[in-house]
Amino acid sequence: MKAGKPVIAALGRQTTPQVPIWLMRQAGRYLPEYRAVRARAKSFLELCFTPELAVEVTLQPIRRFPLDAAIIFSDILVVPHALGQSVRFEEGQGPLLEPIRSAAELRNLSLGRLAETLAPVATAIAAVRRELPEHVALFGFAGAPWTVASYMVEGSGGSEFATVKGWAYREPESFALLIELLVDATGAYLLRQVEAGAEILQIFDSWAGMLSPAALERWALQPTAEIVRRVKARHPDVPIVVFPRGVGASYARYAAECGCDGLSLDSTVAPEWAAATLQPRVAVQGNLDPLALVTGGGAMREEVTRILGRLGGGPFVFNLGHGILPQTPPEHVAALCELVHDWKRR
Amino acid sequence: MKAGKPVIAALGRQTTPQVPIWLMRQAGRYLPEYRAVRARAKSFLELCFTPELAVEVTLQPIRRFPLDAAIIFSDILVVPHALGQSVRFEEGQGPLLEPIRSAAELRNLSLGRLAETLAPVATAIAAVRRELPEHVALFGFAGAPWTVASYMVEGSGGSEFATVKGWAYREPESFALLIELLVDATGAYLLRQVEAGAEILQIFDSWAGMLSPAALERWALQPTAEIVRRVKARHPDVPIVVFPRGVGASYARYAAECGCDGLSLDSTVAPEWAAATLQPRVAVQGNLDPLALVTGGGAMREEVTRILGRLGGGPFVFNLGHGILPQTPPEHVAALCELVHDWKRR
Repeated sequence: MKAGKPVIAALGRQTTPQVPIWLMRQAGRYLPEYRAVRARAKSFLELCFTPELAVEVTLQPIRRFPLDAAIIFSDILVVPHALGQSVRFEEGQGPLLEPIRSAAELRNLSLGRLAETLAPVATAIAAVRRELPEHVALFGFAGAPWTVASYMVEGSGGSEFATVKGWAYREPESFALLIELLVDATGAYLLRQVEAGAEILQIFDSWAGMLSPAALERWALQPTAEIVRRVKARHPDVPIVVFPRGVGASYARYAAECGCDGLSLDSTVAPEWAAATLQPRVAVQGNLDPLALVTGGGAMREEVTRILGRLGGGPFVFNLGHGILPQTPPEHVAALCELVHDWKRR
Repeated sequence: MKAGKPVIAALGRQTTPQVPIWLMRQAGRYLPEYRAVRARAKSFLELCFTPELAVEVTLQPIRRFPLDAAIIFSDILVVPHALGQSVRFEEGQGPLLEPIRSAAELRNLSLGRLAETLAPVATAIAAVRRELPEHVALFGFAGAPWTVASYMVEGSGGSEFATVKGWAYREPESFALLIELLVDATGAYLLRQVEAGAEILQIFDSWAGMLSPAALERWALQPTAEIVRRVKARHPDVPIVVFPRGVGASYARYAAECGCDGLSLDSTVAPEWAAATLQPRVAVQGNLDPLALVTGGGAMREEVTRILGRLGGGPFVFNLGHGILPQTPPEHVAALCELVHDWKRR
């Protein structure tokens, strides 16, 4: 446990002089310097896989704001790409994948080139670690199997996920093969990130909230718990944060069963409830509405103060309830950091 | 309290010989006879406002399946239409409204023609009541102010609701005027439905899950509770079901504060949690994943049995966690009704 890095301390249930803060997608389109670097890469995947560029955009928000953590710039869909699936990112459209629709098509995927394809991410992680200020921790991350499988089967995000859910309901045995493949790939990928220098890991399950409770247990919670076990078996001291977005009261099941150190809360989770139900077992992270950050001013201050008042005393890392929005004024991020860091003093 | 109607009995916490069942959007595109009637109307709104057609599609699922309730065929956006906003429904696109973006534009709306515009709904309700089998209860319904306001301000559904949330954060005083207008309109409209013959009311808050806890309290829960109070002041015996979709653990706040008789649960809500937390205070309704109904067979049976096992003993009405999907095979609905009705016997 590295003392002195407030995010790591908070996830280890230690008291910190200031509430630590970082923001999901803090390296992103709301920053003009990000857009400038993005314009130099031919594609979004090239940006992810060119260490020089990935390092630069990872560090941009750290230079601008007193954030307590960096998160390596990448995307959860580098894993299906590395497994051999075609993945494209169209400007303004979100990701587009050549969808996989059956057990037979799973045969086109392979773990064989995973490490090689994802090596640039490890290179970028190592380089960022050398550049970060002493108190700033570095997150590695990956998507949870259910969320990544949703993109792989649907071919894009959003919608009702009729295809992937239909597969899971109709043929759970073959769908389990896809999930197991992703558990293997994601476990190996996260271990590689730790070995390259990632100090904390976050597992994003953005579409966990699409699942009924039984399906959540089988396709989201248990596969994620298995990844956590594999990482912890080799690196018991690396804190792991899980973000099962939209699961409501089932956050309590994650706190009880997932084996992670922290849970990242979406903006619907009431801080009172999280303080009573989750914080006794795990650290929590969250959960300002990204639209409150876009708005700024008094409305943002009210929401922030409410969250800090309920959660700030416990093991807590301030964050948003979802990724930062492209229309966010950067000066609102600066104001937010100040509000959060000053809170214990007031 | 009309004995003999199982849905009304269940919402009144009485024991019923069979678990009652109805399905959100049970009159809809998955039925060929619905598509035939829809083709006779020039527009979706014409279908809603022509009593003969609305009555016919309301009754179609009742003729086919042993459902315990009908719900008047209409749409939550008839209210903004009746307030003077332009509302269109494009095939396959969802609703499109001429958006209202400021307090100044609120002046174009008026309660003056509400009763007259919505009179055909009352006519249809009265006609359906005359046709329904004795044990089948009739639901009236409306959208909750937050959800209807979201459509009115955004001009359509989905997305991040940046415009409506931005307005609510930036200018809560003027946004409150829109919500108050909708409380007035919706309260009056629901009372009119009861007076025409609706025996139960459901208030749909489909986008409640977009709100942070404080915003949920102010813009969703309290306005809905006010509507419930107004209806109950005149008709204390009419059961009211509220559906705050996606609010997670905050369903417990609705159970404590909303004053309704029943809560309709989305598919993410764990039946165990609802049984322990909600059923002691209110009846619950739900919450089969609509995709499990599309799938049918053993997968559906497993999900249904799990829900009934946890909730079937308490005050409970079986339903979906969201509207029935257009690709649902009608024979799966028949199988579902049989499963649910036979459950207490086994």
